Amino acid sequence: MRRLIGNPTLSDVAEVAGVSTATVSRCLNAPERVQEETRKRVMEAVQALGYSPNFGARVLAEGRTHTVGAIIPTMDNAIFSRGLQAFQEELRESGLMLLIASSSYRPEIEEEQIRALVKRGAEGLLLIGFQRSDDVRAFLAAQQIPALVAWAWQPDAAQPCVGFDNHAAMAAMAREVIARGHRQLALISADPAVNDRALVRIEGLRAAMAAAGLDPATLVIETTDATLESGGLAFRRLWERPNRPTAVLCGTDVLAAGALTAARDLGVAVPDAVSITGFADLDIARITAPPLTTMHLPHRRMGREAARMLVRMIAGERVESRELDCSLVLRGTLAAPRDRETGQR
Amino acid sequence: MRRLIGNPTLSDVAEVAGVSTATVSRCLNAPERVQEETRKRVMEAVQALGYSPNFGARVLAEGRTHTVGAIIPTMDNAIFSRGLQAFQEELRESGLMLLIASSSYRPEIEEEQIRALVKRGAEGLLLIGFQRSDDVRAFLAAQQIPALVAWAWQPDAAQPCVGFDNHAAMAAMAREVIARGHRQLALISADPAVNDRALVRIEGLRAAMAAAGLDPATLVIETTDATLESGGLAFRRLWERPNRPTAVLCGTDVLAAGALTAARDLGVAVPDAVSITGFADLDIARITAPPLTTMHLPHRRMGREAARMLVRMIAGERVESRELDCSLVLRGTLAAPRDRETGQR
Repeated sequence: MRRLIGNPTLSDVAEVAGVSTATVSRCLNAPERVQEETRKRVMEAVQALGYSPNFGARVLAEGRTHTVGAIIPTMDNAIFSRGLQAFQEELRESGLMLLIASSSYRPEIEEEQIRALVKRGAEGLLLIGFQRSDDVRAFLAAQQIPALVAWAWQPDAAQPCVGFDNHAAMAAMAREVIARGHRQLALISADPAVNDRALVRIEGLRAAMAAAGLDPATLVIETTDATLESGGLAFRRLWERPNRPTAVLCGTDVLAAGALTAARDLGVAVPDAVSITGFADLDIARITAPPLTTMHLPHRRMGREAARMLVRMIAGERVESRELDCSLVLRGTLAAPRDRETGQR
Repeated sequence: MRRLIGNPTLSDVAEVAGVSTATVSRCLNAPERVQEETRKRVMEAVQALGYSPNFGARVLAEGRTHTVGAIIPTMDNAIFSRGLQAFQEELRESGLMLLIASSSYRPEIEEEQIRALVKRGAEGLLLIGFQRSDDVRAFLAAQQIPALVAWAWQPDAAQPCVGFDNHAAMAAMAREVIARGHRQLALISADPAVNDRALVRIEGLRAAMAAAGLDPATLVIETTDATLESGGLAFRRLWERPNRPTAVLCGTDVLAAGALTAARDLGVAVPDAVSITGFADLDIARITAPPLTTMHLPHRRMGREAARMLVRMIAGERVESRELDCSLVLRGTLAAPRDRETGQR
């Protein structure tokens, strides 16, 4: 047998099995048209050479696809991209390819994508947040596909997860805002009905208000989708209210950057006339003027940890959920409120 | 035969074929251990029911994977994400799933990923830029996998492509800068050795300089990787030079935003002391202070067009390469240079 350099070809298989390349091809594509004896010899050569004629045959030969799926709510901005890049780099170290799909924050699309990824051979899935139907949970359990929840962590989570405590993180941000003297708070948030991280952050914010003696019912919430434009429009709506907030907390840096842009366009000085805070510490948090006070999330660490955990889950190991730290980053968009009558702090 | 609701199961197949579920399983996983007659009956039931036990068997049954691969240089920032989101949304309309891989701007990783995606059943590929080895071109040709080049367009391209003319776009930006009176130009760019879009943009810039009577050899180029930090460091290096540029053109908005941040930290007023321009018109271009003068690229349109073209290529149709328009967006970071002695414009 000649020494093989690079990937074995159809001809290599034919040579080793002592048949024509047409027969090898027939074995792979229409095995029922080949005698069992011949087929066996060809499949042995395929196995011996590690020949991968196409994905399908390889999957059947190995029983493995070496593929992991991730479904993220959006690729349209940078919220998930940095963590995902690290997730993929780490998977690559374990010889796994990543398939990414984006659900556009729509649960019914996510469900369809989960089923599709599993049917297409995903050996494990990375999913964002905990919120999904019983149907799809049952499907994953029945198919025995490990699924790791990321970008979220809850102390009582039934599923393995890696992320941060959205409740605690938003409560910490709210405490900081309240400690500066703010009493009229508003929040620009994703719709909590389709985003459980947003829901938990709202709860954290309300809990911090209550703990500080503020009435959580006074919190004004503008829900919106995830774009920069939407953040700006939400800020404009808040600014048209009779009781303008003195501090606008935002569910992401993208929304906060949009709010800042709208404030600039309206001639509203930040933080003099209103404080604005972000959440995520994306690149944009450092380039707004002033730079954003925000919650730093461990994007790359979360991606790497998620990959390591999922690799272990695929190998059949049990993993413990992991909570990662966030940290408050104080930059220029948060200050004490001025008295609107006197202009004094 | 009972009516099936939802996906057919292994039991449905067994019932229709009149065998045990163990036999169905054996047919799918070790067909050589099943008699031909039985195997035929089971495979007929599999086909009749449209049963998809796993990706591998489905691929062999249908001969299709309904999967498209895209390899982008990075997921770490927003440069490719908006167009890719549109690409995926449009593919979804045609029932195709997208597998994304990220090459970290490394040609050898891209090549590995191309081979892996093809082996894993990608029916077509979206690739960024034209630059790749003869080996991998030959591989794609041999495998008959259509590959569409995006984010780049060249009039003489041998491969189908959809994108914009990087040469013309950077030349247009340079003409605008030169028309304001700038004579000392610098460029912060990706390494042209591994990024052919960057190479073509440098050529466009030099061509515009020559056409305006400037010596292209006076162009100072700082090459760097794609991050915000790198853009800032490159600006600092430019600012340490004895002949400081009066205008710094950047290959992406991310690099330009980094340069702006460094300028702010150095106390260098933009555009008073130096003009800075971006390229791509990402979200960040609108939130810097001042907002970035940049080249608007048709991200979402490029993604949608790419999907439509690739779907046609997979169907065996010939497609014509498509050039999309860019447009210069004048915002606040470009102005006439001040005379450094007199401070006058």
